[in-house]
Amino acid sequence: MTEMTETTPGWLSREELESTRARMPILYVDAVPVRVDDTGMVTRVGLLLRIGSDGTVSRALVSGRVLHYERVRDALLRHLEKDLGPVALPRIPASPQPFTVAEYFPTAGVTPYHDPRQHAVSLAYVVPVAGDCRPRQDALDLVWFTPEEAASPMVLGEMSGGQDVLLKQALAHVGRLP
Amino acid sequence: MTEMTETTPGWLSREELESTRARMPILYVDAVPVRVDDTGMVTRVGLLLRIGSDGTVSRALVSGRVLHYERVRDALLRHLEKDLGPVALPRIPASPQPFTVAEYFPTAGVTPYHDPRQHAVSLAYVVPVAGDCRPRQDALDLVWFTPEEAASPMVLGEMSGGQDVLLKQALAHVGRLP
Amino acid sequence: MTEMTETTPGWLSREELESTRARMPILYVDAVPVRVDDTGMVTRVGLLLRIGSDGTVSRALVSGRVLHYERVRDALLRHLEKDLGPVALPRIPASPQPFTVAEYFPTAGVTPYHDPRQHAVSLAYVVPVAGDCRPRQDALDLVWFTPEEAASPMVLGEMSGGQDVLLKQALAHVGRLP
Amino acid sequence: MTEMTETTPGWLSREELESTRARMPILYVDAVPVRVDDTGMVTRVGLLLRIGSDGTVSRALVSGRVLHYERVRDALLRHLEKDLGPVALPRIPASPQPFTVAEYFPTAGVTPYHDPRQHAVSLAYVVPVAGDCRPRQDALDLVWFTPEEAASPMVLGEMSGGQDVLLKQALAHVGRLP
Repeated sequence: MTEMTETTPGWLSREELESTRARMPILYVDAVPVRVDDTGMVTRVGLLLRIGSDGTVSRALVSGRVLHYERVRDALLRHLEKDLGPVALPRIPASPQPFTVAEYFPTAGVTPYHDPRQHAVSLAYVVPVAGDCRPRQDALDLVWFTPEEAASPMVLGEMSGGQDVLLKQALAHVGRLP
Repeated sequence: MTEMTETTPGWLSREELESTRARMPILYVDAVPVRVDDTGMVTRVGLLLRIGSDGTVSRALVSGRVLHYERVRDALLRHLEKDLGPVALPRIPASPQPFTVAEYFPTAGVTPYHDPRQHAVSLAYVVPVAGDCRPRQDALDLVWFTPEEAASPMVLGEMSGGQDVLLKQALAHVGRLP
Repeated sequence: MTEMTETTPGWLSREELESTRARMPILYVDAVPVRVDDTGMVTRVGLLLRIGSDGTVSRALVSGRVLHYERVRDALLRHLEKDLGPVALPRIPASPQPFTVAEYFPTAGVTPYHDPRQHAVSLAYVVPVAGDCRPRQDALDLVWFTPEEAASPMVLGEMSGGQDVLLKQALAHVGRLP
Repeated sequence: MTEMTETTPGWLSREELESTRARMPILYVDAVPVRVDDTGMVTRVGLLLRIGSDGTVSRALVSGRVLHYERVRDALLRHLEKDLGPVALPRIPASPQPFTVAEYFPTAGVTPYHDPRQHAVSLAYVVPVAGDCRPRQDALDLVWFTPEEAASPMVLGEMSGGQDVLLKQALAHVGRLP
């Protein structure tokens, strides 16, 4: 999961966020961007290429915090637009039902998901995107993979924090896990 | 549910269909067409206005049989295009997971759903449609209702066979049941 | 939603919780206790009878906060045992996929759910309970309703904060919304 | 999927079933039997060991046809009792929403699922079983695997018709896909 510290006035300062992270589960959303054909079948999965604070390269899903007073669907749209650009045209699901809930623990092994910074609970959605994707901010690139490529050990091995498991769950949910 | 007898060569003759209907559950799909805003929130629900074989007027969901060798998502697309026209641009869900399974029994009262002709088991999906809808075939009209209007006793009272219950389930699934 | 301030060492003090509530969405779980028959069909819905801090009587679902380092399924079990007693034998769902996500806002009208104290985001589950239920703590009583009774205006009218909507969503999810 | 020809009077004769199979999608249910702990977490997955008509050994899920006038949940219970014995105490899900819909085509490659005999559309459920399982009929044995074992290439390789994919989807749905 990416560093989501927000600096807009009224949101949490870095100190407040750190303090809260030490005491509460933090609500996140994870989005798996996909391309679909006319019948809704997933044909491609989009993964971000990121460079972490420690210099490591990794592939990642679109992920981020839900803010105070923000609806989950607004958080989804905000993070998708931030990571994929303003003309990605994401189709946020009509139903709030996530395909799974990913529980990231600071201690590895409690669940398949791990975030050393915090206990984050993430609502995970598959989101078809119809427009042009232009990664920005800390995302270096967005690559579209076939479901078979996305589920390959090479690509999964470049994901961290258990997002490889989450990606496989998304592929299973849309019936495209090889 | 509408009369779905197909006359294309290779499909069932009316006699064969009648015979099969008397012996097997018949697989259907039900689609609830909706309009959504940029955040995926359902803003309108589309209902067909139909005249049944006995002259009664009723509002109905998009509904029809899944054919031999036809994928569920292809059946969804076919019935949506048949009822809403060729430029409705339905967004068939990426996941095959229906929001519910509606079991229509020939005997009323076994389940909330009833079809005097047959035992039909229907996979039900909410389908956002983005384009222009031009009802054709036996559909006389398509009317877009707000979720509040769609869930009103007046509109629900114009639906038959338990599709009023199915509509409420769809609204509940997308978080818009009043 | 009930007051969930915890006093166990290591958890949040009341002041810390109040401070956090003013800045972050707080993660909750909602559970709808049900009785099922051998085929899994819901035959009864259990609702708590509570007296709020202002003396008002209301019916409520089992609801409470997810703690730091606590898995969602452990939070579900903890709140069910707290409200229904130690021998209720709740069958926590095998899948973490909730039937919906209820977003309680401090401002009424943003969503169907409202909590004046906080912005709470709640993962909602239907939980069959097989054992004896003995409400304790602030719950005065637990009453089992048929789905028809539970969905009646009288019972729904005794629920607050939008839990009537959530209850209808649960009934719709299990195919028992009248 | 196992041979489900029924010989009870009133059901289909073998000839009628063969004839219908050639013309209609046949409705099935697939059940993945699991053991769960007190928090609902899946700890074991049960797989049947079967010998097919051609002598090949394979592991299989509980699977079978939905009969005319039979509710899906009754079909689930019937097939679970047939394959696991009368005291398995399966906990049929309260919701009719399957975790996926598996479309078995007679032609391999259309979907991940394949049934040379027919076009079958199967509603798939994860079913916790609490009692003693005593396989009978054509099932030779039932073996409980950990999720890790069940998802291993060796076990998956002993499944046919795409049930290995369906098993992985079930594990993904319950958050236990390694």
